[in-house]
Amino acid sequence: MDKPKAVILSSGGLDSATCLAIATAAGYDCYTLSFDYGQKHRAELQAAQRLSVQFGAQEHQVVNLGIGQLVSSALTTAAIAVPEHTGAHAIPVTYVPARNTVFLAIALGWAEVLKAQDIFIGVSSVDYSGYPDCRPEFVAAFQSLADLATKTGVEGNPIRINAPLLYLSKAATIQKGHALGVDYSLTVSCYRADDAGRACGSCDSCTLRQQGFLEAGIDDPTLYYNH
Amino acid sequence: MDKPKAVILSSGGLDSATCLAIATAAGYDCYTLSFDYGQKHRAELQAAQRLSVQFGAQEHQVVNLGIGQLVSSALTTAAIAVPEHTGAHAIPVTYVPARNTVFLAIALGWAEVLKAQDIFIGVSSVDYSGYPDCRPEFVAAFQSLADLATKTGVEGNPIRINAPLLYLSKAATIQKGHALGVDYSLTVSCYRADDAGRACGSCDSCTLRQQGFLEAGIDDPTLYYNH
Repeated sequence: MDKPKAVILSSGGLDSATCLAIATAAGYDCYTLSFDYGQKHRAELQAAQRLSVQFGAQEHQVVNLGIGQLVSSALTTAAIAVPEHTGAHAIPVTYVPARNTVFLAIALGWAEVLKAQDIFIGVSSVDYSGYPDCRPEFVAAFQSLADLATKTGVEGNPIRINAPLLYLSKAATIQKGHALGVDYSLTVSCYRADDAGRACGSCDSCTLRQQGFLEAGIDDPTLYYNH
Repeated sequence: MDKPKAVILSSGGLDSATCLAIATAAGYDCYTLSFDYGQKHRAELQAAQRLSVQFGAQEHQVVNLGIGQLVSSALTTAAIAVPEHTGAHAIPVTYVPARNTVFLAIALGWAEVLKAQDIFIGVSSVDYSGYPDCRPEFVAAFQSLADLATKTGVEGNPIRINAPLLYLSKAATIQKGHALGVDYSLTVSCYRADDAGRACGSCDSCTLRQQGFLEAGIDDPTLYYNH
């Protein structure tokens, strides 16, 4: 019998790499999906490709998304600098409006085309850094939408939105991925990564990641350009 | 005081042109949004531009969306011919998976950037030709998602999804738009329109449109290339 198919949203970061490992271990044929939306940290797309190859994904697609012209945020607008980590809990300026909504919508379309029954997204509400679209209620609302939005949903067979990291801390995510063989040196989390994928070590994303490895008791394999 | 802003999903067709007229008449500053997703009927993008100018929209954006590589349907794949109208009620092969979900998601992001409180989409459930994402329950589910997905939503000020044609027949839509000054000769509905925007007169979309003008008792200004 054919293995079931799953679409994995793959940013090239730590979380989506762990998702890919989880879906692979669960027996899915994985179809990885990345977006080129004009993000500054382009090395993440290469990381997503390397991880897709490493985990034997069936196909890796990079969808061009011309939303850079619409959104004005620190991730897409060169004029706005990515800030240092401050520990504040407000919604950060690195927020790209409605990003996970757009990504999940396109994943939904691809899943329907592929006849994949599952989508995996690596959001976590634990190390929640202020993004509204990383919360359990957002994932549940998107599931309700998916039940109604597609031909398969209407036919009684809705595509499932899986968010296996939703209740995991960064440390727990790292421990899980480590046990499943994720090589985290291949992943890029930094908002200011250089072209080789090396990290700054001081932005929000780097800070959370470093704390995660520390708490997990696992050596941090990240390459930093400031060290 | 500044006029309120609205994002109008603008396909260049009859329904979205009517939506634009409704939003303009309601006093909004309109920002029109179209998508270049590899559709065959490219004349619709020019139609959306002409309509945006006619109604004095503040801005018209055409977002490139590389979903053509993912979806395989009659609208994007040259190998699959658009069928003649059959009157059948099954979901048609012209269905593009999750299209309105993707379009609304990007509109949501732009609305948040613009600080627009409203989005208009010209879906109708009356002349429902089998698309799951044209139904009232789909619009309601997207509203629930929008309430949770965005910074403004979390802050208690969700962006409203307006679907003013949801319960209107094609004929009622045409009467409404006609009263508001829509020049329907500028609109392109045909799935097989030629480069000049002229229609085939025999696909699903043309058939619904012709019946609409007939029932509305308004002369059909559409140009056909077969006549």
